[in-house]
Amino acid sequence: MNLIILSETEKEGGHFHLTDKRAVHIKEILRSKVGDLIEIGLINGPKGKAEIVNITDREVVIKPIELKEIPHPEPTIDLICALPRPQTLKKVLITSATMGVRHLYLIRANRVEKSFFHSPLLQPENYNPFLIEGLSQGKNTRLPQVSVHDRFKPYFEEELSGIIAKMPEKPAMLVPDFESIQNLSDVYSFKTDSMIIAIGPEGGWIPFELDLMKNVGFKGLTLGRWILRVETAVAGILNQIELLKLINNK
Amino acid sequence: MNLIILSETEKEGGHFHLTDKRAVHIKEILRSKVGDLIEIGLINGPKGKAEIVNITDREVVIKPIELKEIPHPEPTIDLICALPRPQTLKKVLITSATMGVRHLYLIRANRVEKSFFHSPLLQPENYNPFLIEGLSQGKNTRLPQVSVHDRFKPYFEEELSGIIAKMPEKPAMLVPDFESIQNLSDVYSFKTDSMIIAIGPEGGWIPFELDLMKNVGFKGLTLGRWILRVETAVAGILNQIELLKLINNK
Repeated sequence: MNLIILSETEKEGGHFHLTDKRAVHIKEILRSKVGDLIEIGLINGPKGKAEIVNITDREVVIKPIELKEIPHPEPTIDLICALPRPQTLKKVLITSATMGVRHLYLIRANRVEKSFFHSPLLQPENYNPFLIEGLSQGKNTRLPQVSVHDRFKPYFEEELSGIIAKMPEKPAMLVPDFESIQNLSDVYSFKTDSMIIAIGPEGGWIPFELDLMKNVGFKGLTLGRWILRVETAVAGILNQIELLKLINNK
Repeated sequence: MNLIILSETEKEGGHFHLTDKRAVHIKEILRSKVGDLIEIGLINGPKGKAEIVNITDREVVIKPIELKEIPHPEPTIDLICALPRPQTLKKVLITSATMGVRHLYLIRANRVEKSFFHSPLLQPENYNPFLIEGLSQGKNTRLPQVSVHDRFKPYFEEELSGIIAKMPEKPAMLVPDFESIQNLSDVYSFKTDSMIIAIGPEGGWIPFELDLMKNVGFKGLTLGRWILRVETAVAGILNQIELLKLINNK
């Protein structure tokens, strides 16, 4: 844990009483003592320090001090992901939270197994711990929103246009596609910070899906020479965006 | 499996008798019949097609036809990785093979748990299946070499200089470092194709280690705003290199 992530709803009388793996981390990895300061972050809130005020076998009690404004800018990247198998989804949730994704849309596609939509992992109480783990890893406090959309065509033809209409500016819409010869810098020029990235299922989108996405405004791009696993493609494009931002001082 | 990976040593009288998960994949996922053609790749050899010549409950027999030259250029990227926990190492092995790493050096670092060096996964018979899985994913046939080095200082001060001396040209040597303000395009200018990338342990390199690496020629770089897990950092820098190659037509 690079940052102890706390929710404002856990606060009792100005203190947080930790009994879960955060308490274990503070006791066994950080080996903190009463009076020590640790790094904390409040979900969708500021980061800063907390003082350890009590340690017992059962709990660690901490008191936030020195909370600063949120250091990262508003997130600007939405990720659409053809719903992957649960083991892969866990990694996508973690990476999304670590790397500042704003909203993760989990959607139906032809090569998505229908059973994946019945996974218990799609319940917030089950996926939230993976988002929190990702925030803690990235020292990030902005919790991505997650939503599930079990019909492909209505999502792209109706729901998405409603989502885009509510955005302050029209986003760049990008879909990694092994057949494309254009790369990220060919299709994204920083006219807008806002981006929607669509990652296909294992086995890829079918031609009908790619055509429909391109019809509603998505541009294809190649990530490079290799066919990547879903979680590697997610990490891949988010890291390519980071590099392009660094090169362009954005 | 995007490509059925075969080893020349498995060949018997011009045929391959598959009894493992490759046979299951051909029967249950591809649903191939006798006479069908499937895509194959020979380890460190050509890719092409094979014909299904027999299918029984016990095995699938295939016969290579149309083998073409290796389509990818010689790999040029070596990856040094502070030995991660076995679950993470599996992902690093897969991504390394998928994305064309030439040699994976697994090394000691201060924040590497000593017990990791006793993992059965460090035996070739145990790590090779993950490399093969990665090749299959990336449709790549170049098997990365893997070696284990359990002392940090002798590795960087002695072994590595011997490794570099045998290379046809001096490689670019890069170490992602959260403190660096330079990015990949600042520190890598395509003067050489050959690169050595060093990925630290969870929790990062200690200052002594970073100083020593910089003394032997490594340049620090930032991957972006976030602190990444080891497997995400590996995917991240390899994808950033792909983007930089695409931008520069290399």
